[in-house]
Amino acid sequence: MRAIVIDEPGGPEVLVWREVPDPRPERDEVLIDVTASAVNRADTLQRQGFYNPPAGASPYPGLECSGVIAEVGSDVEGFKPGDQVCALLTGGGYAEKVAVPWQQVMRVPDGVDLTEAAGLPEVACTVWSNVFMIARLRKGETLLVHGGSSGIGTMSIQLAKAFGSHVVVTAGSAEKIARCLELGADEAINYREEHFAEKVKADVILDIMGAKYLPGNVKALKTGGRLVVIGLQGGAKGELDLGALLTKRASVHGTTLRARPTDEKGAVVRGVVDNVWPLVDAGVIRPVVHARVPMSDAAEAHRIMETGDHIGKILLVS
Amino acid sequence: MRAIVIDEPGGPEVLVWREVPDPRPERDEVLIDVTASAVNRADTLQRQGFYNPPAGASPYPGLECSGVIAEVGSDVEGFKPGDQVCALLTGGGYAEKVAVPWQQVMRVPDGVDLTEAAGLPEVACTVWSNVFMIARLRKGETLLVHGGSSGIGTMSIQLAKAFGSHVVVTAGSAEKIARCLELGADEAINYREEHFAEKVKADVILDIMGAKYLPGNVKALKTGGRLVVIGLQGGAKGELDLGALLTKRASVHGTTLRARPTDEKGAVVRGVVDNVWPLVDAGVIRPVVHARVPMSDAAEAHRIMETGDHIGKILLVS
Repeated sequence: MRAIVIDEPGGPEVLVWREVPDPRPERDEVLIDVTASAVNRADTLQRQGFYNPPAGASPYPGLECSGVIAEVGSDVEGFKPGDQVCALLTGGGYAEKVAVPWQQVMRVPDGVDLTEAAGLPEVACTVWSNVFMIARLRKGETLLVHGGSSGIGTMSIQLAKAFGSHVVVTAGSAEKIARCLELGADEAINYREEHFAEKVKADVILDIMGAKYLPGNVKALKTGGRLVVIGLQGGAKGELDLGALLTKRASVHGTTLRARPTDEKGAVVRGVVDNVWPLVDAGVIRPVVHARVPMSDAAEAHRIMETGDHIGKILLVS
Repeated sequence: MRAIVIDEPGGPEVLVWREVPDPRPERDEVLIDVTASAVNRADTLQRQGFYNPPAGASPYPGLECSGVIAEVGSDVEGFKPGDQVCALLTGGGYAEKVAVPWQQVMRVPDGVDLTEAAGLPEVACTVWSNVFMIARLRKGETLLVHGGSSGIGTMSIQLAKAFGSHVVVTAGSAEKIARCLELGADEAINYREEHFAEKVKADVILDIMGAKYLPGNVKALKTGGRLVVIGLQGGAKGELDLGALLTKRASVHGTTLRARPTDEKGAVVRGVVDNVWPLVDAGVIRPVVHARVPMSDAAEAHRIMETGDHIGKILLVS
């Protein structure tokens, strides 16, 4: 098969589409003929050498895919060759074939085409696991999401609104603000013009900025608030005001999806299929796709992500 | 009645025992004839003007007491005049009488005398709410408690051991270390000689040092670990390594018991009566009392607390 190979860290140009050995499924894995994958921020970090794949993971980038099952291992439950699926991967999505534990595989929701489905697993699993499983966002509570126009942002808006929450986002342009409001956000703050911590008090905050936003995020938390940090785009070490945290009886959670063991990923995936897919089936939640790029031109897809102008997901079509 | 009055902030000598008006119970309150109260770190902060009582609370110090119910309001459930009880207070325990919502009142566990019972509510409610309700310590997990010989420390050791956890504490003298081990701690680290973060990895950490210990505490957390900060004796603003928090999928919780609304305190109190009192009834958990001081001499009790040589609770006998 062919896959995107990174021989040495660097810019988008180091992503090279070339022949590599086919993966072989383990007993608990399915082999998927990949229809599409999608770009995640973590892929650009991996390309630059800042985020090595966990032990045992595929060396090729790609944390999600859609496709058709070609083969199933002897311990696989609930899937058979020919099934159209999408999957949460620990790596290896930028390829023509990928092997993945069956617990991380999901049916394709109704009304979503097989290519679009490639952009759903990461955002659905990330938002479900962080906002609902960890932070336990409740109906009527306020959710603040930084980067409202990102893949995670656009899923957060739709999912939290569907569950009856008040949703506030930050974004960096008038166009992105407009798209967030169109998707259902109750408020959208242009972070180039206003400081979110002066504008909003939230029960739950989903953050990808890390250190840079830590003081503002703690300030923006309500009593009993929960801050979940899933990215460090603004640095890793920041000042935490424990006095404010105690007074507010609040919490700060750090987490990543990729490094979790298969059984934890499986629990997230089951939560998504049970709670998120029915809303996608019903058309209440829609995939938001910015662009479809040929997988062989993954470099171009990374350039689009790194300009930061995209709204929603960038798909890589095999 | 008489109570300990603080006319202006200062040293222990500002605690004056004098005549004040009797409290009157509201409809949801009981009036307790106080047998004893106990000293908490928060009382010494309140005395120094650093921790004002929440709105509506008694101006007199004292976050717990034991005694006999003298009167019950019309909406009180489950208590009657003459009942021997102990209670979690929002203030006012250093007095001959105190009024408290019935939800914060508990029976006296079997085998504990009415005076000793005054030292149980704060430690039992603090440890139960933080280690078990918030951090959800599980059987087989490791709990690290800073200040193992404090009231909270001695209760943490006994309770976590009773629930099947591995317990590690820090303490500052050979005598305190010995007492912690005697109470059941599996390991006790003398913080004057060794740095805990080099010695232990914990699933749950109960911390009273705040900023000073924040880097070490994050370092000492295992994957999935939970740090609960309930005191700021080492400062309020500290550096948080979010990179470590993400990699470990860990969380930092800040909380206080005193400022919570009555219904939340009631949920904690019910948890204590259901889960902790049976262990006290059975003699598995024992109150650890350092000294009994006449309430009129509360100044002396504060001096004992502030030297830091005590092991367990300092009681104030009315």
